[in-house]
Amino acid sequence: MRGRKRHAGALEQVAGNGLLHRRALLGGGVAFAGAFGTASAPDRAAAAPLQIPEWSLAPGDVTPALQKPSRFEAGVVRTLSNPKGEPRTQHARAPLHRLDGTITPNPLHFTILHSGIPDIDPDQHRLVIHGLVREPLEFTVDALLRYPLVTRKYFIECGGNSAPLFSPEPIQATVQALHGLVSCAEWTGVPLSILLDEAGADPAAKWLIAEGADSLVVSRSVPMKKAYDDAMVALYQNGERLMPGNGYPMRLLLPGYEGNMNIKFLRRLKVVDQPAMTFYESRNYSPLLPDGKAYKFYFVQEVKSFITRPSFGHSVNGTGFYEISGIAYSGTGRIEKVLVSADGGKSWGEAALDEPVSAKAFTRFRMPWRWDGGPAVLTSRALDESGAAQPLRADFVAVRGEAKKVPNVLGFPNQHYNSLTAWAIDAKGEIKHVYL
Amino acid sequence: MRGRKRHAGALEQVAGNGLLHRRALLGGGVAFAGAFGTASAPDRAAAAPLQIPEWSLAPGDVTPALQKPSRFEAGVVRTLSNPKGEPRTQHARAPLHRLDGTITPNPLHFTILHSGIPDIDPDQHRLVIHGLVREPLEFTVDALLRYPLVTRKYFIECGGNSAPLFSPEPIQATVQALHGLVSCAEWTGVPLSILLDEAGADPAAKWLIAEGADSLVVSRSVPMKKAYDDAMVALYQNGERLMPGNGYPMRLLLPGYEGNMNIKFLRRLKVVDQPAMTFYESRNYSPLLPDGKAYKFYFVQEVKSFITRPSFGHSVNGTGFYEISGIAYSGTGRIEKVLVSADGGKSWGEAALDEPVSAKAFTRFRMPWRWDGGPAVLTSRALDESGAAQPLRADFVAVRGEAKKVPNVLGFPNQHYNSLTAWAIDAKGEIKHVYL
Repeated sequence: MRGRKRHAGALEQVAGNGLLHRRALLGGGVAFAGAFGTASAPDRAAAAPLQIPEWSLAPGDVTPALQKPSRFEAGVVRTLSNPKGEPRTQHARAPLHRLDGTITPNPLHFTILHSGIPDIDPDQHRLVIHGLVREPLEFTVDALLRYPLVTRKYFIECGGNSAPLFSPEPIQATVQALHGLVSCAEWTGVPLSILLDEAGADPAAKWLIAEGADSLVVSRSVPMKKAYDDAMVALYQNGERLMPGNGYPMRLLLPGYEGNMNIKFLRRLKVVDQPAMTFYESRNYSPLLPDGKAYKFYFVQEVKSFITRPSFGHSVNGTGFYEISGIAYSGTGRIEKVLVSADGGKSWGEAALDEPVSAKAFTRFRMPWRWDGGPAVLTSRALDESGAAQPLRADFVAVRGEAKKVPNVLGFPNQHYNSLTAWAIDAKGEIKHVYL
Repeated sequence: MRGRKRHAGALEQVAGNGLLHRRALLGGGVAFAGAFGTASAPDRAAAAPLQIPEWSLAPGDVTPALQKPSRFEAGVVRTLSNPKGEPRTQHARAPLHRLDGTITPNPLHFTILHSGIPDIDPDQHRLVIHGLVREPLEFTVDALLRYPLVTRKYFIECGGNSAPLFSPEPIQATVQALHGLVSCAEWTGVPLSILLDEAGADPAAKWLIAEGADSLVVSRSVPMKKAYDDAMVALYQNGERLMPGNGYPMRLLLPGYEGNMNIKFLRRLKVVDQPAMTFYESRNYSPLLPDGKAYKFYFVQEVKSFITRPSFGHSVNGTGFYEISGIAYSGTGRIEKVLVSADGGKSWGEAALDEPVSAKAFTRFRMPWRWDGGPAVLTSRALDESGAAQPLRADFVAVRGEAKKVPNVLGFPNQHYNSLTAWAIDAKGEIKHVYL
């Protein structure tokens, strides 16, 4: 029971520049104190008699109906690309470098809105399923709540997330700025297959056109195969009804597929025999390749990972033990393994994964590390159960090219970046974004 | 792939009064339409041409830095026992009858504060470990963030949750009012065993006294066995730093143990050889038994479940198919099975459990049901992997008694209710709280 037995070799080094075996995370008598450097003495120190702080001297604040974070966490907010709501797209990036675990709290879940957030009365909203069906049907929210529901944890990522990493030179920015267009939540909704069966969708139909009730009527074509796999009409996000910016009162959820396809404010599903070639599938989300051709219907967000702590915007203070922590996820299944390097990819050790590991959801990885005060380059590489591995940057760039500046009308080329992210730490403990 | 093959017997009845086999939830050609009654026609109906609502005609609202729920969800808030913050305990109950899934969003997580919420500067806060240790130690938040962290989903429940069910007559109230002092979140923190090892806790020590930095210095005695099992010093709640009312910047987390022991604003852990007999363990949380004796150190929140939809405050509109949905959890392990009855316990069917099922966490159960429009009494009964089963009410009352009105000084007798909750539905679809 008591973990005081020293594990022989618990601080065994498994890769260069101080990476330790993941069993060190289990404790069991590991001498973290010994692994700490003297510079950390002010933080973890011999105890002095406790001072009585001001807040212990009088009763505190009154309990509110809705809790909100401490005023000392006021910096933990989404960053906005268009805070005045000018007539263009509004991005809100999640502060992933300030979070831990696998859930993105609803106030902080990333959003992209192309024509603002509609203020939808859920009692007036309708979802229609029509087209190649036996019987066109119309559903209220209350009607959907009578059907079988399912709860699953899934990430959603914008196809354009991490676009800054197509830049020829590494951009010095936080994980929030580089990778903040991905989040993970526990979603609850009606399996789409049940609703399609209810309407009697034509078994020969190959596509579904999904349309939102926003003023731009964002719409996308979805393969029926995906609709019958793990798609759902989601009504709840982390236990409560969807956030307005995440599609209230209902959205399409296509686990592992690019964010834009997960149509928000879902009002219509039309069963058809060919894709619609809508604006967002023929322009934005058709990444251009170096030879001028484009990927069409590049739906899956492939296996990816990045270290969130330490990362740009943090610093490392004092030699000794640190936990390296990050996020891995894949649209093609469960994360099987995450490798971490502290020497810029020369050698790798295997990280610990927080259990349970769910398919198409954030997986938190953790790697014990003893910093000797010298230069280090931290990076991570994820592998999933489908056999996919996060591509090294040279391989990725060879296939996909670097950032392309092309007239907007030709589309956005910088999509679906899933190569590595690397952080260089100098002798002062300062952190920079680097390419390997 | 496509689920259109009709499952033979998918609507097979497994227990009295319309309970169906849980495989009906998988769809696969189940004729929910056929299972619906005519009264539901306005909800799920033949599609008419879609009207264009007001919110589809113009761009919507500007994206905020922090999302908040739709104004149409303004009723989904915690209910407060002491909204003016008078000098007594403040309870905030979670609206569990309005939620689904297994996560309680941070704004809605229940809280109980005995002297308000302290406004703690995390840079000034210190945690001290002392007493029977080799070396007393002091930790800042930053120091703790260098140690190995672990992320796990756990419920926390007040020992006094569900106290209204000790009443001799069933109280007509929502799940929020009856059971709202329990919530579930994904917590991230440092395993306590690692910190105790770091300080060199005496292997012969049997207890730990945990103390908070609130002005009442709430403190509790914790068995060292629990401290070395799955206890942690939690820093994150559903991905972000703790809510102020849940213990910011750090709290003790003792999975499955009564809420009050999970000391918030944790400032001190003293390793000792006997319990301290603090106020909260010798008075509030020592439930009186019918013979006048009291349970001392009754820590574990035992196996429990209740139906959240439909429940008091909802109504059932129209005959036909419904999903019955609820929450199960146990302080002694993983939920193994939840049984549901629609005839007041005369017959039972087994519910489906949303995967993955985690130990000491909310497990969502779902049961398909076809209402014939006659009287029904819905109830649930959970069993866990330790072999424990939720006690029937008669058995529970025989051991524990009903509500006892005793002078306050003698303590609160109505603790740790974990028997069944039952909802009677009449022919009009109205729902009442009943005892079986």
